[in-house]
Amino acid sequence: MKKIALLGATGSIGSNTVDVVTAYPELFQIISLTFHSNIEEGAALIERLSPQYVGVGSEEIREVLAKRFPKVTFGVGETGLVQAATLDAVDVVLTAVTGSVGLIPTMAAIEAGKDIALANKETLVMAGKWVMAAAAKHKVQLLPVDSEHSAIFQCLEGQQKNNLKELMITASGGSFRELTREDLKTVTLEQALQHPNWSMGKKITIDSSTMMNKGLEVIEAHWLFGVDYDRIKVVLHKESIVHSMIVLNDGAYLAQLGPSDMREPIQYALTYPERLPIKNEKEFDLTQIGQLNFEPMDFERFPMLALAFTVGKKGGAYPTVYNAANEIAATAFIDGKISYLQIEQFVQRAVEAYNETNEVTLAEVIVIDKQTRTVVERWIEEEGYL
Amino acid sequence: MKKIALLGATGSIGSNTVDVVTAYPELFQIISLTFHSNIEEGAALIERLSPQYVGVGSEEIREVLAKRFPKVTFGVGETGLVQAATLDAVDVVLTAVTGSVGLIPTMAAIEAGKDIALANKETLVMAGKWVMAAAAKHKVQLLPVDSEHSAIFQCLEGQQKNNLKELMITASGGSFRELTREDLKTVTLEQALQHPNWSMGKKITIDSSTMMNKGLEVIEAHWLFGVDYDRIKVVLHKESIVHSMIVLNDGAYLAQLGPSDMREPIQYALTYPERLPIKNEKEFDLTQIGQLNFEPMDFERFPMLALAFTVGKKGGAYPTVYNAANEIAATAFIDGKISYLQIEQFVQRAVEAYNETNEVTLAEVIVIDKQTRTVVERWIEEEGYL
Repeated sequence: MKKIALLGATGSIGSNTVDVVTAYPELFQIISLTFHSNIEEGAALIERLSPQYVGVGSEEIREVLAKRFPKVTFGVGETGLVQAATLDAVDVVLTAVTGSVGLIPTMAAIEAGKDIALANKETLVMAGKWVMAAAAKHKVQLLPVDSEHSAIFQCLEGQQKNNLKELMITASGGSFRELTREDLKTVTLEQALQHPNWSMGKKITIDSSTMMNKGLEVIEAHWLFGVDYDRIKVVLHKESIVHSMIVLNDGAYLAQLGPSDMREPIQYALTYPERLPIKNEKEFDLTQIGQLNFEPMDFERFPMLALAFTVGKKGGAYPTVYNAANEIAATAFIDGKISYLQIEQFVQRAVEAYNETNEVTLAEVIVIDKQTRTVVERWIEEEGYL
Repeated sequence: MKKIALLGATGSIGSNTVDVVTAYPELFQIISLTFHSNIEEGAALIERLSPQYVGVGSEEIREVLAKRFPKVTFGVGETGLVQAATLDAVDVVLTAVTGSVGLIPTMAAIEAGKDIALANKETLVMAGKWVMAAAAKHKVQLLPVDSEHSAIFQCLEGQQKNNLKELMITASGGSFRELTREDLKTVTLEQALQHPNWSMGKKITIDSSTMMNKGLEVIEAHWLFGVDYDRIKVVLHKESIVHSMIVLNDGAYLAQLGPSDMREPIQYALTYPERLPIKNEKEFDLTQIGQLNFEPMDFERFPMLALAFTVGKKGGAYPTVYNAANEIAATAFIDGKISYLQIEQFVQRAVEAYNETNEVTLAEVIVIDKQTRTVVERWIEEEGYL
């Protein structure tokens, strides 16, 4: 029986994780879970899963739920996340929270010796250096849940590290892949939220359309697999069937493919190295799909992807600035405060404004994350929707 | 330094092997080689590679070459093959001979403790049961050289055997994939020899067009990977870029892809588990290829493929009859003695004529192989070109 802490239980990855866990009740148990503000769904999950501990986003939610579920221990905010992740009974922490809030509970869990199933990109984007070192020190497994990284992880199994030439991450291109940069000037939120292949949360769907998401994946891959940026390639693959590939020294490619179903990488992170059937699996027949297409990536069309390589190579807190600025800007777009192209503009401006070439500490990275948010929020307030 | 016996040095796989070996002279040395009748190319190889031992197809060739190369030891026929494969100095035997003649030297090499890089399908088709048992007993590696089996082997590395659901072998469809069965009535040898993707020997190009080759691969895969016929699928993939795939229990596919270059699986069989760059590698860019297509296999269009599953499941000497009849019939077609569709007719007739349900021994299989050849030769003589 694997005992799981599920951070971010009411989001898209959270719901898929609940599906995986409840499909195999003899194998998995949710010991603790957290959610931010969706009290209705959160309460339903508490009833359904009977966790020992629940972390919530605010004191108000805690008060309401503590009355309704007197046997459950509750915590609030960062403390709630850290406690949920470090309970003695927990074997593995699935970090499905969105954004930089994932970092501190993940680090705490690693230091408490918990294995990590990582769906939170920002943890590695901000603190890859420290997270990977801590995972090695505490001998915990860091298993990717992102479909791209899970694919690469699966392709790398059994291959000697020195045989690896390149990682090749596939990108669907997101909602606006058929539009020119000129077209993007007038796009709306509703249009941005129509992802061609994956049904996901709002923030990540916007990040897919700007390729910010792919940029974060590139940086995450750099840390997770210890591969230089020059050896990480991105290829446009509209069908999202090939989830990613590796290229080996002899020119052989290994690819992982399958349906666009997040339960697959989630379940593999929980069952690894075993594989079990996905309950109520989507029909998947390659001959019905018929055709897989691959196109070169256009870095001018997607400047956020180009910028990922720039900030990644600069290192230090640059990726943190890149990510923090985007978290604020993408949310501002979702809230109708800025136009679509302003997302990119604010991210670019924040990265240009940052200028630190010395080594930084993890504590400094966390401060820079907060500072960047404040600065970009102020810019948005001052300039508003253009 | 890996010391190699190369059986079938002047054929297509043989030449590619010579390219691989000579590209890394510090890693590989040809200790012995064999060829059947191409004395000109054979003599050139002896000069170039300075083997200790050479097996040739006839006493006449031996006499000519023994005078020209007094330092080399020569052998003839089956004896020559067995001696070349079992020399003390040999580490690995690359069996690139075509047809059932590959079996006896391969078995001898296994019993002498040599690793095997297997490019001869018939060895496993005829004697999979005994060959796999002998390889296990003598703890030798049996590494596939066929691009499909090498692909599956590469995908399976690092995967637990109990996680495997299916093998998915890709098939280009061969020279006549766009033709109906009606069209096949009038096709010529020249047409049959135009393979769309691979440049190979005549016999295997004909076998590709009838899908006999794919049928032999299915049987070979059954033995090599210990997978039931019901879990071996064949899918039409005209580009021959995805060399084959595996499907795992959770629905994930792993695929190996790359250029249509036989040097890759040959080199991997020789360097495994290391991988080295292919010298003068063909340019391979998935975004230039652009599109990969997959279609269901039409078993009525390709009855030889359907028959492979039938003879495979029946077991015993059925696959031997299937293969032996085809060796005679395909050669007769190449020699202009029968029409294209007669290949299939003679194979089908030979399988129908064989009717043994008891267990057979390896010695009996070898006898049945010879008997089948005699019978099919007589049929061809009696009936000729229809």
